[in-house]
Amino acid sequence: MKPPKSKNITWQGSHVTREERELHMGQKGAVVWFTGLSGSGKSTLARRVEQILLEQEVTAYVLDGDNLRHRLNADLGFSPSDRTENIRRVGCVAQLMADAGLICLTAFISPYRTDRDAARALLDAGRFFEVFVDTPLDVCERRDPKGLYKKARAGTIPNFTGISAPYESPVNPELAINTDGRTVYDCASEVVETLRTHGLFFAAVERLAV
Amino acid sequence: MKPPKSKNITWQGSHVTREERELHMGQKGAVVWFTGLSGSGKSTLARRVEQILLEQEVTAYVLDGDNLRHRLNADLGFSPSDRTENIRRVGCVAQLMADAGLICLTAFISPYRTDRDAARALLDAGRFFEVFVDTPLDVCERRDPKGLYKKARAGTIPNFTGISAPYESPVNPELAINTDGRTVYDCASEVVETLRTHGLFFAAVERLAV
Repeated sequence: MKPPKSKNITWQGSHVTREERELHMGQKGAVVWFTGLSGSGKSTLARRVEQILLEQEVTAYVLDGDNLRHRLNADLGFSPSDRTENIRRVGCVAQLMADAGLICLTAFISPYRTDRDAARALLDAGRFFEVFVDTPLDVCERRDPKGLYKKARAGTIPNFTGISAPYESPVNPELAINTDGRTVYDCASEVVETLRTHGLFFAAVERLAV
Repeated sequence: MKPPKSKNITWQGSHVTREERELHMGQKGAVVWFTGLSGSGKSTLARRVEQILLEQEVTAYVLDGDNLRHRLNADLGFSPSDRTENIRRVGCVAQLMADAGLICLTAFISPYRTDRDAARALLDAGRFFEVFVDTPLDVCERRDPKGLYKKARAGTIPNFTGISAPYESPVNPELAINTDGRTVYDCASEVVETLRTHGLFFAAVERLAV
């Protein structure tokens, strides 16, 4: 390609709008924020939702402690201010992922109501789904998948949510799920169905019919 | 769905592997890291690349100062340590986006070589493309799209890269582009072609033929 004649051309690109992006992707960007006690099933549920969505050709991604605490938030601990900064950053990254057109599933205890509300405030209405994984404390403690409750009861882990640190339950979550006695698939399907009925994506079969 | 008979079921989900995700999306996750002076054309180029990719049904997303400095990195200034932390966080977010299967285009001056290398180190080989937007300083200063060089020369902006703060040029970038006298489309097409030849995605027409 020949260089332009003028050296004073305006070096201007154009932006892809959210609408164009979503039209191409066949889905709407959103954040699905799982909150609940340790052992309540947040990460497990989020990962199964991710899998079901992918099978329906909906692009989703899970943010959780595994991929955040080791890198982006490696400089943060579990003091109240560090927890708030942790959740602030998660909220910002989730918003960016949603802006990119993904359904971003976040799985963090996120015990403080104001922190969760701040994450919600980054998104337009209808694009933030708070899912309260409302599994009772005694069930979470019985599961104790990482042996953390045992350590918390023994006093070797300080500031442990539900034992020695507070958890502020959501007031008006988009969805509340008690996972006790239910299968992962059953709970995950309920989340997916909620997203579908809110128009975040069309089921694959519907898309084919368009 | 009936609850499972056993109350002691293992509450286990499954993970979507990167391979499964990429198969579904028809593209590979990667980071394309644009680096260069203020006014070199990084953001403009990244946004046009994003647009061309989207037209080919490849999902891409631009991270730049506009969407990072206002939120995630709102707590950071332009001191050397803040610049390093800024780029560290950008690198982490870009890695997450690439892990989600996106082609993440980052447009930051990112003046320090060690910071860029740290971002590269988060990605597997072949998934990080350093694009040196090698527009000469005098051209950048002539463009001065935000009037920043004028202020830097007047001394009202301290630590301005290229004037009063260093810029360390890439040693072995995957691509180097001098945008002077070229159109945005021409430069952007060169980037897209580089990504295509490295197997990050199939052109739409190729995909249809599969």
